[in-house]
Amino acid sequence: MTASIPSFSGARALVTGGAGFIGSNLAIALAERGATVRVVDAMLPGYGGNLFNLEPMSGRVDVDVADIRDPEAMSRAVRDRDVVFHLAGQMDHVLSLTDPFPDIDINIKGTTVLMEALKRHNPAARVVYTGTRGEYGSADSVPVAEDAPTNPRGLHEISNLAAAKIVEMYGHVHGIKATTLRLSNIYGPRAQMRHSRYGVVNWFVRLALDGSVIPVFGDGTILRDFLYVDDCVEAILFAAGSDAALGEVLNVGGGEPTTFRKVAETLSSLTRARWEFAPFSAERKAQEPGDFYSDISKIRRLLGWSPRTPLREGLEKTIAFYRIHNAHYW
Amino acid sequence: MTASIPSFSGARALVTGGAGFIGSNLAIALAERGATVRVVDAMLPGYGGNLFNLEPMSGRVDVDVADIRDPEAMSRAVRDRDVVFHLAGQMDHVLSLTDPFPDIDINIKGTTVLMEALKRHNPAARVVYTGTRGEYGSADSVPVAEDAPTNPRGLHEISNLAAAKIVEMYGHVHGIKATTLRLSNIYGPRAQMRHSRYGVVNWFVRLALDGSVIPVFGDGTILRDFLYVDDCVEAILFAAGSDAALGEVLNVGGGEPTTFRKVAETLSSLTRARWEFAPFSAERKAQEPGDFYSDISKIRRLLGWSPRTPLREGLEKTIAFYRIHNAHYW
Repeated sequence: MTASIPSFSGARALVTGGAGFIGSNLAIALAERGATVRVVDAMLPGYGGNLFNLEPMSGRVDVDVADIRDPEAMSRAVRDRDVVFHLAGQMDHVLSLTDPFPDIDINIKGTTVLMEALKRHNPAARVVYTGTRGEYGSADSVPVAEDAPTNPRGLHEISNLAAAKIVEMYGHVHGIKATTLRLSNIYGPRAQMRHSRYGVVNWFVRLALDGSVIPVFGDGTILRDFLYVDDCVEAILFAAGSDAALGEVLNVGGGEPTTFRKVAETLSSLTRARWEFAPFSAERKAQEPGDFYSDISKIRRLLGWSPRTPLREGLEKTIAFYRIHNAHYW
Repeated sequence: MTASIPSFSGARALVTGGAGFIGSNLAIALAERGATVRVVDAMLPGYGGNLFNLEPMSGRVDVDVADIRDPEAMSRAVRDRDVVFHLAGQMDHVLSLTDPFPDIDINIKGTTVLMEALKRHNPAARVVYTGTRGEYGSADSVPVAEDAPTNPRGLHEISNLAAAKIVEMYGHVHGIKATTLRLSNIYGPRAQMRHSRYGVVNWFVRLALDGSVIPVFGDGTILRDFLYVDDCVEAILFAAGSDAALGEVLNVGGGEPTTFRKVAETLSSLTRARWEFAPFSAERKAQEPGDFYSDISKIRRLLGWSPRTPLREGLEKTIAFYRIHNAHYW
């Protein structure tokens, strides 16, 4: 059984980080489904915001260049919204090794500024926060369900866990109707592609399209559940559209454990790119949690959502997008 | 079997928040055991810092009025220290209901500033962080062991959980030798006594000494494990003095579940104060986790520490201290 995606016809939506990778795909999907979409994005240099991401919806999405850390801007942004998707954040997993403060300032404090704005100016809005599977840290056993221990290994992941707990707290203490998601490794069109620190699959795609060799860390057998961005967006829409998701923490993952080697081999077969094994750096290794894939039975059961895009098809779509639009991403 | 308290003779110690309740008791204990003690305290108005707390060690403890959020001050403070006890923090459990930012700024960012200073200037130092049993939130079952889920119910507790995770992360990623503790309800001399928001037992003591009626929330049967501050200080010293505590999370609690009614009755018998039942406020109730007491078998097993002061004796000592010194605390 597959549930149908909720309608957002006539809904007034806010997407923070809406010029970024997942945020822009979400904003487009919302506009396509009839929502009135306001995007907030700070467009910080080096971050994921890219106004070209919203080009398909040019004139149909209202873009507010504002920072989630700005209380006045957030007070304005949340007013009159029925649903708030909070995706803005510092997304570089390794930045904290040299500078831990952007994660704290943007992800923790920024989330709190947004939630305070909702509490004060729009406490009836529905909120969805997109965290990360990194909130779990290493898996004692796989697949990892939502009640597994949370032992995040890096400051980025700690900041996501804290932000999620803060969103949940505004739910049970202040009555905000919130759902928090823990996203697996998402890949697809509209991602930041200028450096390797955002998402490994998209970086592999860039290397393949550049004719570079794809480095597969370790022995390539580490398992992840990769998820195509359109499927991720559907999960976010399901979460916002269902009362069954209220107050819940939900994994959003690919459902199918896959090795990095498999990703490299599939890309290789689609582009003729070469791949090779490469060693971890010591600090990366300390943050590397080993095999990890999410148990997605809870979101399947509560919301009827399931991933629909096999890896090969997702990679084909991703390659096709960046082949055409690489000038906007490289 | 009771282990003996480690010697700190000749050790150079830093205590952040060392003019506060637990910090000052710890600083005094360290100096008594032969350590050279540097205290850092921001002396923020309305917080727990009180220079009278350190009066017994006047001239024997070096007090630096500095804020843990100040990177330069922390770089100076951590240099040449063998052991760093990190106790500074925003401690008001209910402040975040009206202003969530001090918890984030002081507890999360401040902790990170301190850990960055250690990473850069003194990575060989031993670190002990004192978090709270509030990091667990409501208990699914009692007693609560260290591997229980962490579902903190208020922003204060979330900030403590994030700070603890950050300290642990500097351990496993950057090699800092750290231990994080989760303290139960601590009471005793040298606490902030001007308002009711720091520790309920000490507040009951003030009311009893003032001749006021002690309000016991709900039906008075909620269980906690109250711990006298000298026992807490011993646990902190044990944690710093043993390699068995490295990288560990350890509960520090009273070991004996006790009702609030029992506390009120004991105080009543010691002071003739009256007590009565009182209702929770709605927001307090939302943050109230119900019955909670810690499983302290891990710290008993690893370090040989156990609480030594029965409730009645601890309350007697607390009453005796504030009877003499109330002018410095009321």
